[in-house]
Amino acid sequence: MIHVIEKQTGQAFKLKKGQKLKVIDPQGEQVSDMVLFNAEDVREKISSGKTLDFEESILISSGNYLWSNRSRKMMKILEDTNGRNDFLLAPCSPETFKIMYNNPDYHPSCFENLYSSLRPFGIEPDDVPTAFNIFMNVQFDSQGKLSVDPPLSKAGDYVLFEAQIDLIVALTACSAEDSNNGSFKPIHYEILED
Amino acid sequence: MIHVIEKQTGQAFKLKKGQKLKVIDPQGEQVSDMVLFNAEDVREKISSGKTLDFEESILISSGNYLWSNRSRKMMKILEDTNGRNDFLLAPCSPETFKIMYNNPDYHPSCFENLYSSLRPFGIEPDDVPTAFNIFMNVQFDSQGKLSVDPPLSKAGDYVLFEAQIDLIVALTACSAEDSNNGSFKPIHYEILED
Repeated sequence: MIHVIEKQTGQAFKLKKGQKLKVIDPQGEQVSDMVLFNAEDVREKISSGKTLDFEESILISSGNYLWSNRSRKMMKILEDTNGRNDFLLAPCSPETFKIMYNNPDYHPSCFENLYSSLRPFGIEPDDVPTAFNIFMNVQFDSQGKLSVDPPLSKAGDYVLFEAQIDLIVALTACSAEDSNNGSFKPIHYEILED
Repeated sequence: MIHVIEKQTGQAFKLKKGQKLKVIDPQGEQVSDMVLFNAEDVREKISSGKTLDFEESILISSGNYLWSNRSRKMMKILEDTNGRNDFLLAPCSPETFKIMYNNPDYHPSCFENLYSSLRPFGIEPDDVPTAFNIFMNVQFDSQGKLSVDPPLSKAGDYVLFEAQIDLIVALTACSAEDSNNGSFKPIHYEILED
């Protein structure tokens, strides 16, 4: 069963240990921010710092694990047909649009979509960590300068994850113009049994 | 007045808005992990994801700000005589030594030194975020592969920060062999008035 995350929205759900999650870019060039929490104790959550440390890489793709702040494996990446994801940048938030886009008006954001989806699980806005940004194309040069470029993902590209513990997962269809080449599109996902 | 953080230990203290913090490597090749919290509400804390996003760089040095999870400036870096710091990797923890160093025995760690120092301020281990790793020399190649190399800092090198809000600061003299070329040394700091 394909679940649809409409453009500029988010969803949260439980994923059992051993279940697989397939996150699909149905039209291409669309980012999905993902955060993870231990379903038994939400103080344990996905950590970019722990993941980059244990995986010894800025770029995280097939074969890599996503680690928690308690140094435990939360997900394994089984397949990645696109191969480019980001784990450096925080989810876009209202301040992102004010500060970086010079837009003082209301703008939907991954941060709002993540914390709104996670509220039923008792997770507060301050508890939302840096997300694993699926399909996000953040380039860096040798001096560390970062640029957010259009995603390289094409229609139908997907990343397949396997839960290593019982999880609460939140996913978005990213709301930031720079992350999806200025055109907001949906994200699809499927939960596959072990 | 120079404060001394003995090798493989940590300290936490308050820093008022406008005060300056000088973190000094007295002998050279020694890393200091630093975390920051809003002194009025410790749910607001330093964020690598927000900092790399707003500063548009992996490498953070003079002229850059350190940002919080609520998209506020916590510190400005006024001077940096060494110029190389890391904001990718989580503080070394007991699991770092078990998993990455194949050392099953007790080993002091920045994570333990940070949360032990922060406990009197009501901050729990799970609340410790990815630290700004002063003097830490993490190199990356074009494929994103990371390596922890000996610090480039020489005796007397320092980084001077200015608090943008009232802060709780925790600092360590890092306990990880790879981060200080295998020789554990102290870190010094000074608090300078506005």
